[in-house]
Amino acid sequence: MDGLLDALRARLGAAHLLTAPEDVEPYLAEQRRLYRGEARAVARPGSTEEVAFVVRACAEAGVPVVAQGGNTGLVGGGVPRGGLVLSLARMNGVRAIDPVGATATVEAGVILQDLQDAAEAAGLLFPLSYASRGSARIGGGIATNAGGVQVLSYGNARDLVLGLEVVLADGRVWNGLRALRKDNAGYDLKQLFIGSEGTLGIVTAAVLRLFPRPRSTTVAFAGLASPERALALFARLRDACDRDLTAFEVMPPFGLDLVLAHTPGAVRPLAGAHGAYALIELASARPDADTRAEMEAALAATLEAGIVEDATVGASEAQNRALWRLREAMPEAQKRAGASIKHDVSVPLSSLPAFLSEATAACEAAMPGIRVCAFGHFGDGNIHFNLSQPPGMARETFLAEWGRFNRIVHDIVHARGGSIAAEHGVGLLKRAELERYGDPVGLDLMRRLKTALDPDGILNPGKVVGEGAADPGR
Amino acid sequence: MDGLLDALRARLGAAHLLTAPEDVEPYLAEQRRLYRGEARAVARPGSTEEVAFVVRACAEAGVPVVAQGGNTGLVGGGVPRGGLVLSLARMNGVRAIDPVGATATVEAGVILQDLQDAAEAAGLLFPLSYASRGSARIGGGIATNAGGVQVLSYGNARDLVLGLEVVLADGRVWNGLRALRKDNAGYDLKQLFIGSEGTLGIVTAAVLRLFPRPRSTTVAFAGLASPERALALFARLRDACDRDLTAFEVMPPFGLDLVLAHTPGAVRPLAGAHGAYALIELASARPDADTRAEMEAALAATLEAGIVEDATVGASEAQNRALWRLREAMPEAQKRAGASIKHDVSVPLSSLPAFLSEATAACEAAMPGIRVCAFGHFGDGNIHFNLSQPPGMARETFLAEWGRFNRIVHDIVHARGGSIAAEHGVGLLKRAELERYGDPVGLDLMRRLKTALDPDGILNPGKVVGEGAADPGR
Repeated sequence: MDGLLDALRARLGAAHLLTAPEDVEPYLAEQRRLYRGEARAVARPGSTEEVAFVVRACAEAGVPVVAQGGNTGLVGGGVPRGGLVLSLARMNGVRAIDPVGATATVEAGVILQDLQDAAEAAGLLFPLSYASRGSARIGGGIATNAGGVQVLSYGNARDLVLGLEVVLADGRVWNGLRALRKDNAGYDLKQLFIGSEGTLGIVTAAVLRLFPRPRSTTVAFAGLASPERALALFARLRDACDRDLTAFEVMPPFGLDLVLAHTPGAVRPLAGAHGAYALIELASARPDADTRAEMEAALAATLEAGIVEDATVGASEAQNRALWRLREAMPEAQKRAGASIKHDVSVPLSSLPAFLSEATAACEAAMPGIRVCAFGHFGDGNIHFNLSQPPGMARETFLAEWGRFNRIVHDIVHARGGSIAAEHGVGLLKRAELERYGDPVGLDLMRRLKTALDPDGILNPGKVVGEGAADPGR
Repeated sequence: MDGLLDALRARLGAAHLLTAPEDVEPYLAEQRRLYRGEARAVARPGSTEEVAFVVRACAEAGVPVVAQGGNTGLVGGGVPRGGLVLSLARMNGVRAIDPVGATATVEAGVILQDLQDAAEAAGLLFPLSYASRGSARIGGGIATNAGGVQVLSYGNARDLVLGLEVVLADGRVWNGLRALRKDNAGYDLKQLFIGSEGTLGIVTAAVLRLFPRPRSTTVAFAGLASPERALALFARLRDACDRDLTAFEVMPPFGLDLVLAHTPGAVRPLAGAHGAYALIELASARPDADTRAEMEAALAATLEAGIVEDATVGASEAQNRALWRLREAMPEAQKRAGASIKHDVSVPLSSLPAFLSEATAACEAAMPGIRVCAFGHFGDGNIHFNLSQPPGMARETFLAEWGRFNRIVHDIVHARGGSIAAEHGVGLLKRAELERYGDPVGLDLMRRLKTALDPDGILNPGKVVGEGAADPGR
């Protein structure tokens, strides 16, 4: 190991090979504090060639390496378990923006917010967006096929990637950095690396799709009797607004109450009480688009049809932002309400209300006083099915039930043909769950891919389907 | 082999194992008559279990098997080279349409037109569409990641697939038939099979995305000075019409002349002569959308800006169809103009005009009298860069130059970061070209995938990157 570190220090410069415990520490912890890893050093290469050098040297020395971007992942996918952390943070350049081709060529370490800003400066939109955008780096978003709040209209990270440059497990560089909308020249290799959580290769650069910037955006907040009605509303809006419908998020009354109780400045958007709340966004780049009129017409029709009980439409950008804050403040508000057991799941859209009612009843039966806070990307069939502890219960007593509630919720998800890892990935947190619920033939295929691309298990070992110590289950 | 055929006959029934030469013959030829294959028999399984039985039996006997849908491919990807043809034609059912989830679950052998019709009957749109839709089957469209005329707005086949069921090279069935918009539970295995041309697995069923049906559609035909102006027009329309812009096809004056000369009933859409012609489609499902007014406003602005020289806007569905016919009649019209050497290429959108002018000049310099007919999916950066023989030259004399013109055109495409196989795939026709232009690391990765998933080379051997006899080059 010392020989390896000497070689890396010589190539990267001493400033870019961190070995002091206090320098390494920030790379060992992850934000949810579910895991704390261990690593001998952190390498901070400044170029693709340097990334390749680091990985080749690690491969030759048989030392594992885990890539990290902003270290904002939610499933422990970036937690090192020995070996080296390879930080992409120095490779944070936007190499080029092509306004006619509507593409951005970027390094993996660019911060998501910086990329959004660079696109905006060119008069375009990079739509991928999620809460950690101020520190998350695009390489991590690609490696985890990140989702977020604009998937309904623009897709996941996978849908936004045109080309990739990837350092392989043996240190070779695959140059797939192409800006093509159509390319059927052999297998579409980039798909392998998107969502593979750094276990098949390390993304060093990408060509990404950009879109016209919306000129008109309107947000509304609707109160409904139930998730069934929310689904009916979604189907109506999709039909009436077509691709102007860019977000459809749902939260329960308990969730809205938490936000109102714990978020400074948050104001109850509707007077009465309702069984479910939907946040709706319409947006269009058409110069003559009037998304406010469009929203009002669509909601008036659903009010008349008895689908919506009440609704408010943002009349200004400030009001639009205030409505979005009610949704975005949810995770933080939930944190204030005590310990949470979380599930990031998806089911086929048409069975989402039935899933919610079945899983809620099962959890409430399993622990009286538990408070279900199921919210999120309803229009994508993706719900953060989170459980807040009963008031008064000790935090650790509740969290000790993590595995039991995983079983209850994931069994129902699985029976309905859903996914136990919808947008956050597998990492360490869902590894045992993936083994449990994954199709055996599919799991065998995943292992074959891992063996084909990383036969010595150098890249992020122990994650997704890699070999390694058993997953602790949370 | 006889034991294998006996086993298949016993399982499938004699009617579904074709061995008589006259019965096998239609599966050996492909529509462009560039190749004629050979096969001992054609198996026509009626279920996934029967497909699995056939493949397992072939694997055990070491007999190769090539899957065929409608046999409408353009690169020889479905041509058998010994062994068995496995036809999916009997598995032609639409299993379910979920109007709320906006998905269709179908068997691989469903004819594209039937799927489009089934979606329409449910009030929805399945947007994948290309000339052979009356006989092409969806399994082939998925296996080749087919493109076509609606990619600009809805994406390639890959973008429309939510889930797949696949029979693997050893006869096991991978069940990935999920209807989820978000699923990050491990590697996204379906991506492996989409576009792999039947070399990694045989698709037996799929869950596909459906969309709201457009309520307003308008087609226009514009005359421009040059491809540069066509690109400027495209950028303007994308900005002005956002996602209402559903098609942007371009054809050269020579192409329009061919269509007018050889297509019964075709009428010249614009009075004057122009350097390039664009077919534009706007479509929206919004009930209040007026795509005709939108088109007229957008074109008026580009006329005023000097980007467009002249334009006509379809005032009825019949006029829209007539304008589309001018584009769709192009391949047939070109056939009437003698022999063609064809290239299905893409380049980054912003360099498309420069590519067209460079490649046209190079071809014209290489053979006086040659007639370049470069047309197609301009908005996707995908051009069918076709060459019509000089008038009077013998057909075979011209076609003998196939390899030389491939080299000229593909060298320029490659230098510009483009693809030599944009939407039709590799098959046999582009195999040597893929070896020539492919990134060596990428080619190695493709071979590793082939070895990992089909170690004995049972599935469609000799295609894409498979081992086998050398590619004849056309």
